[in-house]
Amino acid sequence: MLETIEQRKTGKAEAMNELNSMRNELIDLANAVKSAGIPVIITIDGWSAAGKGSQIAKLIKYMDPRFYDVESIRTPNEIELRKPWLHRFWQRLPKKGEFLILDGSWYRDTVNAFMYDEISKSQYKDRIEDINTFERQLADDGYLIIKFFLHITKDEQTKRLHKLSSSEITRWRVNPQDIINNENYEKFFKRYDKTLMRTNTEFAPWHIIAANDKITAQFSIMMTVTNAIKGACAAVESGEKFIDKPEFPVIDYKKSEFKMAKCKKLSEVKMDKSLTYEEYAAKLEKYQTRLFELQNRCYQKKIPVIIAYEGWDAGGKGGNIKRVANALDPRGYEVKPIAAPEPSELARHYLWRFWTRLEKDGHFTIFDRTWYGRVMVEPIEKLTPQERVDMAYQEINEFEHQLTEWGAVVIKFWINIDKDEQYRRFKEREETPSKQWKITEEDWRNREKWDEYEKAVDRMVELTSTNFAPWTIIEGNDKKYARIKALKTICKRLEDRLLELDH
Amino acid sequence: MLETIEQRKTGKAEAMNELNSMRNELIDLANAVKSAGIPVIITIDGWSAAGKGSQIAKLIKYMDPRFYDVESIRTPNEIELRKPWLHRFWQRLPKKGEFLILDGSWYRDTVNAFMYDEISKSQYKDRIEDINTFERQLADDGYLIIKFFLHITKDEQTKRLHKLSSSEITRWRVNPQDIINNENYEKFFKRYDKTLMRTNTEFAPWHIIAANDKITAQFSIMMTVTNAIKGACAAVESGEKFIDKPEFPVIDYKKSEFKMAKCKKLSEVKMDKSLTYEEYAAKLEKYQTRLFELQNRCYQKKIPVIIAYEGWDAGGKGGNIKRVANALDPRGYEVKPIAAPEPSELARHYLWRFWTRLEKDGHFTIFDRTWYGRVMVEPIEKLTPQERVDMAYQEINEFEHQLTEWGAVVIKFWINIDKDEQYRRFKEREETPSKQWKITEEDWRNREKWDEYEKAVDRMVELTSTNFAPWTIIEGNDKKYARIKALKTICKRLEDRLLELDH
Repeated sequence: MLETIEQRKTGKAEAMNELNSMRNELIDLANAVKSAGIPVIITIDGWSAAGKGSQIAKLIKYMDPRFYDVESIRTPNEIELRKPWLHRFWQRLPKKGEFLILDGSWYRDTVNAFMYDEISKSQYKDRIEDINTFERQLADDGYLIIKFFLHITKDEQTKRLHKLSSSEITRWRVNPQDIINNENYEKFFKRYDKTLMRTNTEFAPWHIIAANDKITAQFSIMMTVTNAIKGACAAVESGEKFIDKPEFPVIDYKKSEFKMAKCKKLSEVKMDKSLTYEEYAAKLEKYQTRLFELQNRCYQKKIPVIIAYEGWDAGGKGGNIKRVANALDPRGYEVKPIAAPEPSELARHYLWRFWTRLEKDGHFTIFDRTWYGRVMVEPIEKLTPQERVDMAYQEINEFEHQLTEWGAVVIKFWINIDKDEQYRRFKEREETPSKQWKITEEDWRNREKWDEYEKAVDRMVELTSTNFAPWTIIEGNDKKYARIKALKTICKRLEDRLLELDH
Repeated sequence: MLETIEQRKTGKAEAMNELNSMRNELIDLANAVKSAGIPVIITIDGWSAAGKGSQIAKLIKYMDPRFYDVESIRTPNEIELRKPWLHRFWQRLPKKGEFLILDGSWYRDTVNAFMYDEISKSQYKDRIEDINTFERQLADDGYLIIKFFLHITKDEQTKRLHKLSSSEITRWRVNPQDIINNENYEKFFKRYDKTLMRTNTEFAPWHIIAANDKITAQFSIMMTVTNAIKGACAAVESGEKFIDKPEFPVIDYKKSEFKMAKCKKLSEVKMDKSLTYEEYAAKLEKYQTRLFELQNRCYQKKIPVIIAYEGWDAGGKGGNIKRVANALDPRGYEVKPIAAPEPSELARHYLWRFWTRLEKDGHFTIFDRTWYGRVMVEPIEKLTPQERVDMAYQEINEFEHQLTEWGAVVIKFWINIDKDEQYRRFKEREETPSKQWKITEEDWRNREKWDEYEKAVDRMVELTSTNFAPWTIIEGNDKKYARIKALKTICKRLEDRLLELDH
């Protein structure tokens, strides 16, 4: 793609007036974005010294600074390196109606990491897939993504770096890497070109900007941004999906496909499993001790462990989690209870609040209720349109796949009880003063929707039991049995992963 | 204090039953804490190998892991080092009704930093003052703070470190620092002892635990925790302030006093200042250019800049902030609009949401409305009891003082307009379609309380214009004048700071 770009020059006089009026238009457009509740992400990548910083400054010159956030993406810091690589970008997602403008993005990260041999060829390919997935997920959720690549020629880059280096005031802006990259311009050219081609999608097409001449570049950027925003606002108004006109042929994008694991329907699960107290006590001791050892090994090997708990109300999640937590060194895990989202969470992609809750590698993150609320409570309570819910199965598989790629062991439990057992437990809660806080009107209302939930659970298990993150349905009528099964499953999954790593 | 501690041994048999019943009691107490909405912070400091980790594990054994968070405090990472030193502890504050349990705390941080010459004697003293302030602020807000120091003798420590080092499985838990500290046990003893004495306050007294014998230690910890929680819950019920019985004489604590700057009442401010458009354009250019240069220098010297905007509705804060932001490299600042707090913010100390919004050093954080809501809207709208509001002036001065200590330049603007001018702007907003979103019923309601607000502002300016963070009242009837005055003030403050640093 890059070789087609022609550098040209725009006279200052002819551009200035038009630029000014476009900037004024942008103020109104920013208000329209706010009203329409569109979250906008503008990424500015490109060659070092291509003028990314000053282009951003020009772009936002007249905008209200309360509604945008400009971030400069540098090499990841020590904490960021211990999270999934896309974590730091998820974390920065703008709210609906706000702008995030990135000086460098997941692209600079990826190309640099590859060129400096920090990631292998196959990791690079995984990242390209992750990027397309990430951008598609955001676009599907209504995010407007405008991607720029600021292109300058080698001569121009050499000249600019030389100029920056020769003044004492600007010298600090040139780092040694810039010089090396400049010397290897041709290699970077090839890599950038491939990267751009492979990520030029219908939902997030590239805008390559000829940036040898700054005014030309400014002009193209401003034009692209205003057009894209106009298009997106019009689309929101007409209820259609906005598609930015691509400047280059887009790739034939296909969603990732995942191998699925076998699974049962809830009605096929035999619910008569139980343990005597003696069996329970002995096994509890055994598996807790084993889990503690395994945690230690995972900590040393920096393996992240994600445990997701779902299940019927009064299914015994709390007590089950407690037995797992008890086995662990408390400095190495965190339990995240998931309640209804707060305003700042509702204003972003629904996966945001889970991405941002991930502990660093080597640690356990235990979710008490999870992202699967998206395909259970949200459609049943009509909180999310069915169309978006239907997309969630794929999105969730992608999310869990990215966690696995990061190195995580992803363990998912559905704690199953039957309807009679739930009734018994509800009644018991009502009759025991110390447990009354655990039972509310809402629990009874949810119970009335048992069949709807059962259908949703079956569908969820069927569509999200991947071979890397399979569901484990736990027979929960007997709490003792359920706890041991959870512990045993966790131990088995961790042992398998550790064995894999040893080979 | 440490020399008075006698190591003793408790028989396993006699302790076990009682320990078990205390643990069961703790489950009920945790529920009581949840109902009473008390946030609990338990810090476990002490010698290396004193058994902090295993004591924490024992303490929480039966507790519901959804309501506590255990964190291990290590040397600060690169991001933490670029924030105020207490930032990482503020960030971790538990919600009301939840427990934060820290393995090492601000104490380990401080003693280690001092012993390893990372901070000077006077910085150490500042930190002690910061700690007392921090703990008092939390206690005043209803936090229950239980501080433990696990004390073991030098022989015991030597023995334990040796044992840990000699097994392959536990060797990683001993780091070189532990060995050096052990060799310098006496020096650390003295420093710990002084630190404990100086931070043994009525609101957060120390519990020193003889920890040579693990069961004895467990017993004392459990007893202290259950008693403190019982006391705190009873106090909440009776509406009194809980005071934990100190085991050692507490210091004669006095709040920090600050030198105040001179300031005017709003009624004394002459409101007839204005600029012609030509004057404005010339000065805007001049000060924006200067500010851009100053930002560059602050960035290189890693000076944090905090700008706080307050002012009457329709005072022109937005436009003013925009002129400041426009001057800056967008990668080096963030504007934080402050709206009503979200549930997770209401569940914590009111300063928490400001602490957690601070950008790293070298960057500008611009607050559009601020922590001063505490002493304006909160009492006037009866959101906070007057008694807590009255304490806020001191708390805010302390907060800003800690920012200054971190190296920040703290600049505070009150954008002042008179009542007629506000009326004119409100009307104009109502009559201009593109501005209607800016004016609501609430604005008119607030306007009715003008006199109350004016009184609150006068009091605020009087009580929080310290010499390190003075208020600047900006005559805002003429927006042009106001913008230039803000820019000029910022430039002046930054120049002063840079000059100071050069000397």
